[in-house]
Amino acid sequence: MEKIVSLAMGSGGKESWELIERIFRHLGNDLLKEAEDGTPLPSLQNPLFTTDSFTVSPLFFPGGDIGKLAVAGACNDLAMMGAQPRFLSLGLIIEEGLELRQLERILRSMKRELALNGAQVVTGDTKVVPKGGCDGLYIGVSALGERKASISQRNIEEGDLILLSGDIGRHGATIFAAREGIELWNDLESDCRSLWPIVEELLESGATIKAMRDATRGGIAAVLNEWATAQNVEIEIEEEKVSVRQGVQGICEILGLDPMVLANEGTFLLVSSRDEAPKILEILRSHNPEASIIGEVKGDHPQRVVLRSPWGTRRFLDMPSGEILPRIC
Amino acid sequence: MEKIVSLAMGSGGKESWELIERIFRHLGNDLLKEAEDGTPLPSLQNPLFTTDSFTVSPLFFPGGDIGKLAVAGACNDLAMMGAQPRFLSLGLIIEEGLELRQLERILRSMKRELALNGAQVVTGDTKVVPKGGCDGLYIGVSALGERKASISQRNIEEGDLILLSGDIGRHGATIFAAREGIELWNDLESDCRSLWPIVEELLESGATIKAMRDATRGGIAAVLNEWATAQNVEIEIEEEKVSVRQGVQGICEILGLDPMVLANEGTFLLVSSRDEAPKILEILRSHNPEASIIGEVKGDHPQRVVLRSPWGTRRFLDMPSGEILPRIC
Repeated sequence: MEKIVSLAMGSGGKESWELIERIFRHLGNDLLKEAEDGTPLPSLQNPLFTTDSFTVSPLFFPGGDIGKLAVAGACNDLAMMGAQPRFLSLGLIIEEGLELRQLERILRSMKRELALNGAQVVTGDTKVVPKGGCDGLYIGVSALGERKASISQRNIEEGDLILLSGDIGRHGATIFAAREGIELWNDLESDCRSLWPIVEELLESGATIKAMRDATRGGIAAVLNEWATAQNVEIEIEEEKVSVRQGVQGICEILGLDPMVLANEGTFLLVSSRDEAPKILEILRSHNPEASIIGEVKGDHPQRVVLRSPWGTRRFLDMPSGEILPRIC
Repeated sequence: MEKIVSLAMGSGGKESWELIERIFRHLGNDLLKEAEDGTPLPSLQNPLFTTDSFTVSPLFFPGGDIGKLAVAGACNDLAMMGAQPRFLSLGLIIEEGLELRQLERILRSMKRELALNGAQVVTGDTKVVPKGGCDGLYIGVSALGERKASISQRNIEEGDLILLSGDIGRHGATIFAAREGIELWNDLESDCRSLWPIVEELLESGATIKAMRDATRGGIAAVLNEWATAQNVEIEIEEEKVSVRQGVQGICEILGLDPMVLANEGTFLLVSSRDEAPKILEILRSHNPEASIIGEVKGDHPQRVVLRSPWGTRRFLDMPSGEILPRIC
């Protein structure tokens, strides 16, 4: 077989089957092996359904690659709403000329990430576009999970506390540095990570979680503003409680961006009642010592996010706008 | 709001929400409106799950566009296995600069096609890539259906008859003609069509269908070969029973391709027992008078498809290989 992906591999004939078999080898499972155009699934009692497309550039970056990102990203959308990831669909749009070695490396990292989530790819589709038709590889993933708890932004109310699972902005900063060839900070690595294991631990602890959201595109600024708007509440954040690593801060200075708008791919926000917060924080800290309670839900400025500085001054943190960083996920 | 899609619309901030609201307006339904990162669905008893990515060029062609194709294509994968399409995910990868007017036209045609299937888009994702990052618009759709009958290639056995729902090759020929600006045949139009309505009629008639497959990439040659291989049978086709319109034949002569390998997006193959075939054919013919019984399942040459000419000669119809037509779906 050839060493690069050819247009013939997307034509639905012999070469397509050879490519699909090669992909199967990495993601293979009984449901996928028996697949026709659709895959029968066992019955689902409380299904949660999500989708995400991935166009990240570069395909490989410190801390991950597009395959890890795609599985973790889609599964995290489920985990953040209290659902255990189960069944994934995988759509690959491959640029003619992609090295098969690279594709296989990406599939291997998908497989690892699937195992962390206890999930399976059960249906797939592969398209090959001529050179220039995409940038190497785009991945579309849809995911089905079984809901274990009713976690939703609709539970957020005045008096709740806002927790953050770790330091922010690492994914966005890492992608920017990788793309621009900046190597100033050796420790800079994406936070790309599957969150179901920690969510499962939180649920098993008996803690009541009201809402969670991984702070991807638009960073924590986007999530906090979406919550404030959706629930018609004010969210007040203590700025100094939000941890930003030195490398991320450095990239932000180059870009002229606030780390609050930089993308994360594992770091997440969580809302709980005041009573539940301490035990949740303890679990979060066992995974990342930088986790902290960063703010609270109030009522003075509905639909606004307020940042409080260590000196007591306050300013609004707006919904991000404009081009932040294209193709970070 | 601007008239073209900008990179800022993919950054997860204010402009992203404006774009999403504009998309919502066309696909809006209660489940989508309330969507967070994942959408809770009602319980599913016999779910069937499928996925498809669409990179067709051009975006608009006689008989359809990428939006119609995406909804029909994904839903047809379900219908062909006896499942009623229910819930769809939609991933849009949009090239910076795409006219919003074009995007909205595509969304409107998705909406029409969703209605024909009785299905809803319940979760979505939008990415914007810089100019050159894709070709206008790529669409990824995953679809969930409820299975009403156990239709599968695994039911195919010696003695069964092969039915074809209409004339072949129109989609592939139309795309090629549209791309190359060939306007010799005015009547040439894609067969792009949602198949659930006709499948529902077939199921309600009480007819027993063993297998069905829409003959997309690789045409009927690919489907027949996949069936012959999967079930270790011979499939013999009477060549003159396979209807090809004049315009399609003309394009095939230009391309030097057999219409049997050209893509269809609505024309499908069906397998039934000899007894069930007449009433099935009657229903197929009420939709397309060119429907016919084109062959039968035999045992002499396992895993091969044999074409019998009107003069009684026989030749093998191989699994297509090589580049057929890139980006036809």
